[in-house]
Amino acid sequence: MRRFCLLLIVSMTTPALTLAQATDTSARAGIETFNRAFDQATRDMDNKATVALWEDDGVSLLPSTRPIVGKKAIGQMIETVVAQFPGARMEKFESACFDITVSGDLASEWCTEHQIVQLGAGKPPFDGWGKMLLVLHRGTDGKWRLKQEMWNQAAPPDSTAKTGR
Amino acid sequence: MRRFCLLLIVSMTTPALTLAQATDTSARAGIETFNRAFDQATRDMDNKATVALWEDDGVSLLPSTRPIVGKKAIGQMIETVVAQFPGARMEKFESACFDITVSGDLASEWCTEHQIVQLGAGKPPFDGWGKMLLVLHRGTDGKWRLKQEMWNQAAPPDSTAKTGR
Repeated sequence: MRRFCLLLIVSMTTPALTLAQATDTSARAGIETFNRAFDQATRDMDNKATVALWEDDGVSLLPSTRPIVGKKAIGQMIETVVAQFPGARMEKFESACFDITVSGDLASEWCTEHQIVQLGAGKPPFDGWGKMLLVLHRGTDGKWRLKQEMWNQAAPPDSTAKTGR
Repeated sequence: MRRFCLLLIVSMTTPALTLAQATDTSARAGIETFNRAFDQATRDMDNKATVALWEDDGVSLLPSTRPIVGKKAIGQMIETVVAQFPGARMEKFESACFDITVSGDLASEWCTEHQIVQLGAGKPPFDGWGKMLLVLHRGTDGKWRLKQEMWNQAAPPDSTAKTGR
């Protein structure tokens, strides 16, 4: 009888666990797709592709700057920044993201990033390390987009500089 | 018949909406309780109370600093910072949080904060404005705790300085 009950419990719980695991795997895959698209858009300095990764009501929180609220305002901010550096070219952009946490259509992760931007016109390149905290939302189309983003400077790189952690 | 169907749809959907609304109200109330506790612990410079607001696997992301991973490491960091300023006293701490987003046991919000810290020993007070992005998790005890936190400097205050937005 005990064995029967155990089997019954296993048979009742296994499908639920499998479904949860599948959901989790699917969400993680979606978030990793977002991460790759975010990296590529940044690497290409493709403003249109970057803006497309934001929710309409997204909020970007950059240092020493007032919160930038809404996809439209975020797009304008990116255009303004890029316009200040005509001829700039992203030589390198690498990021690594950690602790992906998902609950339904909301997720979070934090990332480290390293970018080298050639500024042209004889200027020395910009070589910066940063950290990001990202809150993502899954739309009705199944795609994950940025809802809230904050950035701050990373510690100066040392022997663990490969990930910036 | 059409009216009957409409009534049937309303009667089928209303309880679900009410339950969702109740859940949302309950989660928001829990997060506002967290916010008040976070403010009070900061105001009192009560390290033990601050650490108690963190999840065991929480991550704090501060500027120009490596990610601080885990409740224990976060507690040690707070102790180290406080020890550097013996005699310091929080004269004022105010914060305002926006865009609370909840999905199950995961939530996010972003906040602005203003603090004035009397450093003692004839030093001028520290008067700083910052922004925070907080990711919260609700434990099995129903309490919301910090899972991920990032801070960066706010824009210098202007006429909208009351909230720092």
